[in-house]
Amino acid sequence: MTIITLLTDFGLQDGYPGAMKGVIWTIAPQVKIADISHEIRSQDIFHGALTLSRTAWFFPPATIHVSVVDPGVGTRRRPIALQVGDYYFIGPDNGLFTLVLEHAETRKYPIRAVHLNNSAYWLPEVSRVFHGRDIFAPVAAHLANGVLLEDLGAFIHDPVRLAIPHPEPLNDGGWRGQIIEIDHFGNLATNITQEHLQHLHAFEVHVAGEIIPGLVNTFGDRPPGTLVALLDNSASLAVAVVNGNAAQRLGSVIGDPVEVLIIP
Amino acid sequence: MTIITLLTDFGLQDGYPGAMKGVIWTIAPQVKIADISHEIRSQDIFHGALTLSRTAWFFPPATIHVSVVDPGVGTRRRPIALQVGDYYFIGPDNGLFTLVLEHAETRKYPIRAVHLNNSAYWLPEVSRVFHGRDIFAPVAAHLANGVLLEDLGAFIHDPVRLAIPHPEPLNDGGWRGQIIEIDHFGNLATNITQEHLQHLHAFEVHVAGEIIPGLVNTFGDRPPGTLVALLDNSASLAVAVVNGNAAQRLGSVIGDPVEVLIIP
Amino acid sequence: MTIITLLTDFGLQDGYPGAMKGVIWTIAPQVKIADISHEIRSQDIFHGALTLSRTAWFFPPATIHVSVVDPGVGTRRRPIALQVGDYYFIGPDNGLFTLVLEHAETRKYPIRAVHLNNSAYWLPEVSRVFHGRDIFAPVAAHLANGVLLEDLGAFIHDPVRLAIPHPEPLNDGGWRGQIIEIDHFGNLATNITQEHLQHLHAFEVHVAGEIIPGLVNTFGDRPPGTLVALLDNSASLAVAVVNGNAAQRLGSVIGDPVEVLIIP
Repeated sequence: MTIITLLTDFGLQDGYPGAMKGVIWTIAPQVKIADISHEIRSQDIFHGALTLSRTAWFFPPATIHVSVVDPGVGTRRRPIALQVGDYYFIGPDNGLFTLVLEHAETRKYPIRAVHLNNSAYWLPEVSRVFHGRDIFAPVAAHLANGVLLEDLGAFIHDPVRLAIPHPEPLNDGGWRGQIIEIDHFGNLATNITQEHLQHLHAFEVHVAGEIIPGLVNTFGDRPPGTLVALLDNSASLAVAVVNGNAAQRLGSVIGDPVEVLIIP
Repeated sequence: MTIITLLTDFGLQDGYPGAMKGVIWTIAPQVKIADISHEIRSQDIFHGALTLSRTAWFFPPATIHVSVVDPGVGTRRRPIALQVGDYYFIGPDNGLFTLVLEHAETRKYPIRAVHLNNSAYWLPEVSRVFHGRDIFAPVAAHLANGVLLEDLGAFIHDPVRLAIPHPEPLNDGGWRGQIIEIDHFGNLATNITQEHLQHLHAFEVHVAGEIIPGLVNTFGDRPPGTLVALLDNSASLAVAVVNGNAAQRLGSVIGDPVEVLIIP
Repeated sequence: MTIITLLTDFGLQDGYPGAMKGVIWTIAPQVKIADISHEIRSQDIFHGALTLSRTAWFFPPATIHVSVVDPGVGTRRRPIALQVGDYYFIGPDNGLFTLVLEHAETRKYPIRAVHLNNSAYWLPEVSRVFHGRDIFAPVAAHLANGVLLEDLGAFIHDPVRLAIPHPEPLNDGGWRGQIIEIDHFGNLATNITQEHLQHLHAFEVHVAGEIIPGLVNTFGDRPPGTLVALLDNSASLAVAVVNGNAAQRLGSVIGDPVEVLIIP
């Protein structure tokens, strides 16, 4: 009873994810399908990579994650499949799996990757503009049916990586990072993580000209309307307004700097 | 073949409902999962309560409804599970189940409630900010696997209730109510129900300075663009514009008054 | 293991598609359910017809497609079910199945249609305003359970058809068509298809005062920001901006003209 997940920038209006589900269930009627997101910002590969890496590991082993944010569809960019520890990932080779690979390397999960060049597992007719439906969905379904990774194409060792922005250490022991995501609630996720903060004693978070004194445990620890910093559900430093929208309050956008400064 | 439903204010962009599905299927791979809504307005507990109570009873007996609109996540507010007639409800104890409980009491369904304080049925690591993924989803999955309600925590008898606005009777036999919801089509749902209207003969509906003469049976009973009043799919008085958007036309917002006045 | 799909203009906020799923699984717990779209523009029957016809055929034979864009709900417009080749379609008789029927007639698929007038297969209580939940969902579930098409109602031979805009031939051998859809990416879909273009040699695409020289194979064949014409995933002529939004760039709306002019 394999699970296939879908993560795309296709939106929910046009029926594109529906077509992918039709293709999957035509080939592998026994699988379960879960949507992770179809509202990745258009052509924003990093947004897709981040959302995937924060969600993929909550699924059971053997889950097949199909991820399609694919501005280069139909060009020479490769379609690929990865086996990363107990999970499979299928999609375009454009950096979408960078954070999944980083996560796996940190934990020493085994990694195998193939270039999907065996068209026997694609739809018979392949559009130049919708590989999600015509290549990635059928390949995922065949994999769920027991086809081996090595039968899907030739092994490769160089999947494309995005340059990921990491925080820089400051002289005083603090960190300069940045906002890497703004979620549905307007919470600002940063690339500063629990690990960066764990040896720090007292510190302040500086963002958009505001100074936040240390971390709270959760939103409700302060009155509504308070600007707070906390560890989010991925153990990253986040900035939020209690019962409010931090992005709107601060006028913040992705890429804006966030600093953690030591209180002497 | 139990069903678990999800209703949240998480939105569909960030993959949060996807993470909940991953957790559920890791523990209980046999369940079916249905999304009720992930577009409850942020932190709007009443909106969640209303949407849940209008949908929950259309699912088969034994369905487990997981509902998470949770501004107090990680504070001392209790996580709870309810058995209400043949259905289960799981989520934060903040009033989200008020209308479900009212519905059940009217119909004399038996009700049992527990405080989810047995962490054996949670994820091993619990974030302070995402109990949907770390407490409510795994508890629902264990319940689907046959764990008993009483094993999930201690019985309680005082789940939190929201103060629900009910219509006031007018001297002439009519009612003063209010708009309690505006749906995707811009239709205005009120807290005046079929029961309030059933003994009335001729009446008018007054809203936003407009006067609507009585009820139509359905939208298409009047030409496009007409402002009409009718009983909606939950048998509540609603105001609509045929093939149009009443909220935009009238500039209405939730909480605005709506009056039913008797025609002498 | 039948599949039922849902396509509606209900949006995802209010729980209406969730209620339909509850009804379906109450009657037919074994079926799989896939959402095609719930973001069809409100009351836009043509938009529903187009999205349905571009997606339906990617599902396996015996799939039951429930489609509800239904401004005439509760009036004398008929509820219907169609068998079209190996697929079933259920919804209001208002033209929503026009393109499915055209597709079938071109391919000589057998077609049968019934007026859903056997209330034995509806919910016991039928709202005047939500036939998706009270008629179409239960009928689909009973069909999935093996009830025969002819038991659902009386055969009819005149399902309603929309007048579909087809391109006009130009004197020089080219075509004047129009924009029939704008997708999530802002790509402009036209009613000019691969078949209209297949005997043409060199041509230009004229749209919104811009001239595009011929077709590219896919988006990435030109630098970001370039206005291009190409065949989309349904083999129709489409206009796009590479990594951008053509509708915003050109200020285009549905119905705007698009011309294919022969280069002498």
